[in-house]
Amino acid sequence: MDSDYGVPRELSEVQQKRTLYQPELPPCLQGTTVRVEYGDVAIAADPAGAHVISHAYPHTYGQPLAHFLRKAANVPDAKVISEHPAVRVGIVFCGRQSPGGHNVIWGLHEAIKAHNANSKLIGFLGGTDGLLAQKTLEITNEVLSSYKNQGGYDMLGRTKDQIRTTEQVNGAMATCQALKLDALVIIGGVTSNTDAAQLAETFAEAKCATKVVGVPVTLNGDLKNQFVETTVGFDTICKVNSQLISNMCTDALSAEKYYYFIRMMGRKASHVALECALQSHPNMVILGEEVAASKLTIFDITKQICDAVQARAEKDKNHGVILIPEGLVESIPELYALLQEINGLHGKGVSVENISSQLSPWASALFEFLPQFIRQQLLLRPESDDSAQLSQIETEKLLAQLVETEMNKRLKEGTYKGKKFNAICHFFGYQARGAMPSKFDCDYAYVLGHVCYHILAAGLNGYMATVTNLKSPLNKWRCGAAPISSMMTVKGWSRGPATTQIGKPAVHMASVDLRGKAYE
Amino acid sequence: MDSDYGVPRELSEVQQKRTLYQPELPPCLQGTTVRVEYGDVAIAADPAGAHVISHAYPHTYGQPLAHFLRKAANVPDAKVISEHPAVRVGIVFCGRQSPGGHNVIWGLHEAIKAHNANSKLIGFLGGTDGLLAQKTLEITNEVLSSYKNQGGYDMLGRTKDQIRTTEQVNGAMATCQALKLDALVIIGGVTSNTDAAQLAETFAEAKCATKVVGVPVTLNGDLKNQFVETTVGFDTICKVNSQLISNMCTDALSAEKYYYFIRMMGRKASHVALECALQSHPNMVILGEEVAASKLTIFDITKQICDAVQARAEKDKNHGVILIPEGLVESIPELYALLQEINGLHGKGVSVENISSQLSPWASALFEFLPQFIRQQLLLRPESDDSAQLSQIETEKLLAQLVETEMNKRLKEGTYKGKKFNAICHFFGYQARGAMPSKFDCDYAYVLGHVCYHILAAGLNGYMATVTNLKSPLNKWRCGAAPISSMMTVKGWSRGPATTQIGKPAVHMASVDLRGKAYE
Repeated sequence: MDSDYGVPRELSEVQQKRTLYQPELPPCLQGTTVRVEYGDVAIAADPAGAHVISHAYPHTYGQPLAHFLRKAANVPDAKVISEHPAVRVGIVFCGRQSPGGHNVIWGLHEAIKAHNANSKLIGFLGGTDGLLAQKTLEITNEVLSSYKNQGGYDMLGRTKDQIRTTEQVNGAMATCQALKLDALVIIGGVTSNTDAAQLAETFAEAKCATKVVGVPVTLNGDLKNQFVETTVGFDTICKVNSQLISNMCTDALSAEKYYYFIRMMGRKASHVALECALQSHPNMVILGEEVAASKLTIFDITKQICDAVQARAEKDKNHGVILIPEGLVESIPELYALLQEINGLHGKGVSVENISSQLSPWASALFEFLPQFIRQQLLLRPESDDSAQLSQIETEKLLAQLVETEMNKRLKEGTYKGKKFNAICHFFGYQARGAMPSKFDCDYAYVLGHVCYHILAAGLNGYMATVTNLKSPLNKWRCGAAPISSMMTVKGWSRGPATTQIGKPAVHMASVDLRGKAYE
Repeated sequence: MDSDYGVPRELSEVQQKRTLYQPELPPCLQGTTVRVEYGDVAIAADPAGAHVISHAYPHTYGQPLAHFLRKAANVPDAKVISEHPAVRVGIVFCGRQSPGGHNVIWGLHEAIKAHNANSKLIGFLGGTDGLLAQKTLEITNEVLSSYKNQGGYDMLGRTKDQIRTTEQVNGAMATCQALKLDALVIIGGVTSNTDAAQLAETFAEAKCATKVVGVPVTLNGDLKNQFVETTVGFDTICKVNSQLISNMCTDALSAEKYYYFIRMMGRKASHVALECALQSHPNMVILGEEVAASKLTIFDITKQICDAVQARAEKDKNHGVILIPEGLVESIPELYALLQEINGLHGKGVSVENISSQLSPWASALFEFLPQFIRQQLLLRPESDDSAQLSQIETEKLLAQLVETEMNKRLKEGTYKGKKFNAICHFFGYQARGAMPSKFDCDYAYVLGHVCYHILAAGLNGYMATVTNLKSPLNKWRCGAAPISSMMTVKGWSRGPATTQIGKPAVHMASVDLRGKAYE
C-alpha cells in the first residue's frame, strides 16, 4: 500500500479500469474560449453579519458573482498558445480526505494545459505542511495517470489542516511568492475554505499577486449554502455507508438479538446520517439538529430509544439498527455546555488532570455521572477549530450503555417483558472515507477542477468554484464562482458559560434543515 | 428493514436484479436420475483418535464416502412422481449468519420439488429455538422469491445455536418425530456440524427415522478438511472486507498520521485475516497460528509491531494498516492460559466479581497488568463451545495501547525519532456478514442444497454435503457426501492448568497451514 510521491504505482484491475473513465464537461466549459459574465454583488446570507464581514474582508467582500458561459456562436476558439498566458498554479489538499479529491486536480490540470501547454500545476506534498515547507511535486500526465477516478488524497497526502495563525499565513504567502504562483487552489471543507478566504484577503492587502481559490470538497456534506449545492465526496460516502448499513440491517434481522448503534462520521451536522437513513432504512436515526431544536437531554434520548425497543419487543422484534451522527454530543444541550466548560479550562491552560476538579458544581455532577471511558474522551484537547474531538467521543457507546441499564431496570420491574437487551457499537467512516469515488463525485470534482482554471484566468481572488443544477444531467450543469466571504456568517461563541463574545466571520457548517424535504 | 416471516418483502433494485440470477448445476446433478456410488470407508484424519470416535459414534462412524454421478447414458430419466417418493425435510440455520445461506435452502427446495412435487420443505423459525419449539414455515416458491442470492439468514432467522444437551437433543428428536421428517438439514460451521453428527448418532440409536445432514456454511472458513475445500460465505466475507481494508489503506496513505489496527471477524483461526491480507496488501498481518507456533508473548508481538513502526518512520512513513484475527487472544500462550484459568473458575461456579481474587499468583500478576477494559472482557462467561467470547475481546485495542506506550517510551529515550504514534482501532465483521453473496457463494450454496437432497434420498445419516474441485469451472465440480464423524479429531483440553482430560471427538476448526501455499 505504500507509495512514493510522483512514482507511478501499481494498480489493481478495478483501479486500472477506473483510470480509463473520462468525465465529460458541460457545454459551457467546452472549447478554449469561455465567456465570463458577472452578476450581482454577492451579499452575505445573514444581513446582520454583513457589516462585520465587510469590515473583516475589505478587499474581498462585496465582489460580484461570476458565471462561466459558452462563448457566443460567432466568436472563434482562441488560438491556444498566443492568447492564453502561461500560468503557475499551486494546489493543496486540506482537511479530511474525501472521495473525488484527485479529480479536482485532474480537471484543473487538463484545463490549464488545454489553454497553454507551458502552464504549470504544482502540488504541495503532505497538505499544508508541504505548503509551508515548499515541498512540491509538479503535476504531470504521468503523475496523474494512476490517480484518475481513484479515492483518497494519497497522490499528494495531507497532514495538518490549518492556515490560520499569522505565522502560517505568512508562511503560505512566502511560498506563493517564492514559487511565483499566479494562484493557489485550496481543496477542503468549511474550515479550510474559511482559511482560504482569510488568505485571499491577506494576500490582497499585502499586494501579493497570488489569487486564492477554494473548492468545496468534504465528505461531511455540511458546506452548503445559497451558492453551493453539495460537496465532493458526500455522494460516495453516503452510498458506501448505506451499503454497509444495509448489511447491518440484514445481519440484525438474521441474528434477531442485537441492536446495532452506528455512529456516522460527518462531524456535528447530521447530513450523512440522514442521507444514509433515507438510503438504507434503519429502524431509527437520531438527528443532532432535532435534538438541539427540542433541547433533548441525554436522558430524553435514552428514554426515546428504550420506548422504541420496548414497542418493538411487544411485536416480538428484539433487534434493530440505530444511526447516530458523529458529533451528536455537541447537540445535546447539557453535554455541550459541559464541553464548553472543559474547553474554557483548556483555554486557560488548566492541565487535563486538573480539569475535573475545576468544573462548576452542575458540570461536575454531570461529569461524575458519566462512565469513565466517555469522561476521558470529553477531556481531550479540542481541535484547531475549537470543536471537541468528535471522532474520539463514543456517544454511541454512552447511549448503548444508558439504554442497557434502563432496559435491565424495566426488565426487573416487569414493565419490559422482551429479551435481554444487547447492543453492539460501531463507528462508520474510515471504511468509506478511502472508498473509490462514485460517478457523480468523479464528474463533479473534475468539472470543479476546470472551473478553478476559469476563476484564476479571470483573475478572481477569494472565490469558491461552484457548479449548480447538479440534479439535472451533466449537460445542464451551470458553472460559476462566488466570493467565499459572502458564504460567511457571524456567530456568538463562548469560552466557558460566563463569557460570550462575537466570533470572527467564518464559513459555518450547514445544519440539516428540519423544514427541508429530505428531513420529511 | 423489518420482515415478517413468509411475507414477501420489498426489495431494492439491486436485490431485485439479484433474484433473477439462476445458478447452474454441474452435469453430475442434472436430470432427475443421479447415480450414487460408494467409495472407501471414510477414516478419521487422525488415526490415533479413530478408536475414540468409533466408540462415540458406533452407528455413524465407519460409513463409506458417497459420490453423486451422472446417470449412465443408457438409463432413462426417472418418471418423477412414480419413482421418487415424496419426502418431508426440515432445515435450520445454526451459528453466525454467512452470506449464501439462503441459496442452500433454494437449491434443496428445487431438488426436492423436481423429484416429487408432493415433497415438503419445512424451515425452522429463529434457528434452533424454532427447532425445539416446532415453530415452522413451509418453504414455497413464494417464500423463496425474495431471498434468492440474498445475504443474511433473515428468511428464517437464527438465535441460539446449540443442540447439545440431552434436553436439546431430545427436543430436536421430538420435533422431527412430530413433524414426521425424513431428514433434518443443519446449516452451520464446525460446532453446528458436530452437533449434527451427535444428533444423527442419537437418532440412529433411538431408531428415529429422521436422517441428519450437515452443510458447511461459515464465514470463518475454518471448516476445512480432507473432504471440505471451503465453506459458504468465506469468499464473500473476504472480498467485502478486502475492499474495506483497501479503503483503509488509501485512507492511511492520505492522512499519513494513523496506524489502523483492524481485527477481522473469523474466530480463532486466521483464514479471513490471511486471505484479506493477500487480497488487500496491508502493511502487516498477525497470524494466530504463527504466534502460537513461535510461542510469541504479547510483549513479543508488541515489540515486532514497534520495530516495524520504527523502521517505517525511518523511511518517513508514519502510517500503516495492521490486520489481526478475531481470536488472536487465544493464540497468545500466556493469555490463553489466563483464559483457561478464568474458564475453569467459571466452570466451578465462581462469580465474575470473585474470579480475579482466585487466580493463581502468575495469572493474577498478568491480569493486574492488563488495562481495565480488557480485564472486563476476559472475565466474560465463555461461549457454549467453551471458547472465550472472542468477538468481545478487543485485542486490537490492547495491542494499540501497548504499542503506543512503547513508542512513547522510545520517543522519550531518543531511540525513535518519528512522529507521535497514533492508532485507530476497528473490528471488521458485522459490516460484511450481512453482505450480498458473491457469485461463487451463490453457486456453491445452491449446488450444496441439491447435494443435500441426494444424500437424504439415498437414506444416508450423519453425512455432510460436499462439493470438491471448486477451483475448476462449475461443470467440473464433483459432488458427494462424507460422514461428519470422519472429519472429527480428538483433542486434549483442560479446565484450569491442573486438570487435563481427553475431550469428546468434534469437528475442530482448521488452522492456517503455516507450510501451505497461501501462507507463503
